[in-house]
Amino acid sequence: MHKYKITLEYDGTDYVGWQRQENGNSIQAAIEKAIEKLTLEKATVFGAGRTDAGVHAKGQVAHFDIKKIFTIDDIRDGLNQHLRPQPISIIKVEKVTEEFHARFSANYRIYEYLIVNRRSPLTIEKNRAWIVFKKLNLDKMQKESSYFIGKHDFNAFRSINCQSSSSIKTIDSFDTYAENEKIRIKVKAKSFLHSQVRIMVGTLVDIGKGKISSISIKDIINNKDRNKAGVTAPACGLYMIEVGY
Amino acid sequence: MHKYKITLEYDGTDYVGWQRQENGNSIQAAIEKAIEKLTLEKATVFGAGRTDAGVHAKGQVAHFDIKKIFTIDDIRDGLNQHLRPQPISIIKVEKVTEEFHARFSANYRIYEYLIVNRRSPLTIEKNRAWIVFKKLNLDKMQKESSYFIGKHDFNAFRSINCQSSSSIKTIDSFDTYAENEKIRIKVKAKSFLHSQVRIMVGTLVDIGKGKISSISIKDIINNKDRNKAGVTAPACGLYMIEVGY
Repeated sequence: MHKYKITLEYDGTDYVGWQRQENGNSIQAAIEKAIEKLTLEKATVFGAGRTDAGVHAKGQVAHFDIKKIFTIDDIRDGLNQHLRPQPISIIKVEKVTEEFHARFSANYRIYEYLIVNRRSPLTIEKNRAWIVFKKLNLDKMQKESSYFIGKHDFNAFRSINCQSSSSIKTIDSFDTYAENEKIRIKVKAKSFLHSQVRIMVGTLVDIGKGKISSISIKDIINNKDRNKAGVTAPACGLYMIEVGY
Repeated sequence: MHKYKITLEYDGTDYVGWQRQENGNSIQAAIEKAIEKLTLEKATVFGAGRTDAGVHAKGQVAHFDIKKIFTIDDIRDGLNQHLRPQPISIIKVEKVTEEFHARFSANYRIYEYLIVNRRSPLTIEKNRAWIVFKKLNLDKMQKESSYFIGKHDFNAFRSINCQSSSSIKTIDSFDTYAENEKIRIKVKAKSFLHSQVRIMVGTLVDIGKGKISSISIKDIINNKDRNKAGVTAPACGLYMIEVGY
């Protein structure tokens, strides 16, 4: 068998998410279908991260095994041809050794979250950012966000659907950049809990709005109570940017 | 009468362009309809630039006159409410004096053109950039583009539909920025000929591809022949960024 690693980009708006599901179109199923059309083989595609419905990717990574051998250019161009006109694009293909696993071999994952903070609705960035109408206190958000960095029990920051046995995770970096009305939040960790980035961002936005003021991120982490944290930020602002091996 | 200046943003993909037309939806008509719903007055909206079908704006400027007086916040929020769910958004409203004219008072206009230069199709930026599959020679494009700057007869760089009596225009600046696979071209001038930015960009891309090699931008300008210039770059990569007064 030959193992290929693919790096891909997608607009997640009209998908049920990465993972194959009974109802609705998934990114995974779309790629598996394209592989079958190109190679006439059935292969399972394993992704580095199972992005939720509406979440986008600029650097999702996945792998699959096939019997036939193809050049990496033929795989990239062939899959892209069979994926048309779906908003899924194979950016890079690499031949990897048998040991490689897109999910388990990953050393880190980077997600980016885009907020547009203004009074007027989105047009060009519709479904590509979270529009927050109320003026945010960016200074306060930046100060509070520093408590996320390091190894903590993130039980307050995971979805009630999260199936991970442990809620202890290490955030390597958490950076907030502002440029005019745009706020970009970049988070790096080996791995994340279900909805962790979206709940971290949503809590910061509640702090920036003044909705959460008597309690700090530090306290919310210590309390381990999901109800003390803020809203789950909408999926449309989240991008899977990079997976490192 | 009270005169208001509006700064607006739109996704031009599904419009016939700025200007009201018999067939199809225009930005101008959409705003006029929203003004009528908000104020119960019929007003004509004058834009700083008549963007073509598919061209976007982040800083188009327009003006209109109405009899009633509104606060600028009420106009912004009211128009945005009536424009929903169309991808047109009023970013800023200012009350201006009778002399102001969005088109004739403008001192400069800035357009930006976005190219994505890679082998793989677009997803998140579909309809928001020109995808150029062949590797472009950026150095050559940057060197050649310097010939655009200054006062020239741009007859070779205007659409056959251009109705301007003179084809002499002055380009104040022409800057090309590259970041990974993205190439951004920013052009500033008091005014432009019909399709001028798109033909300038298309010609540069033909040069970057090596399709035009025996003739330089300088020669094309001097020849004044549209057939010597390159393709008209697609509308979807063009953004009206700023109008100065």
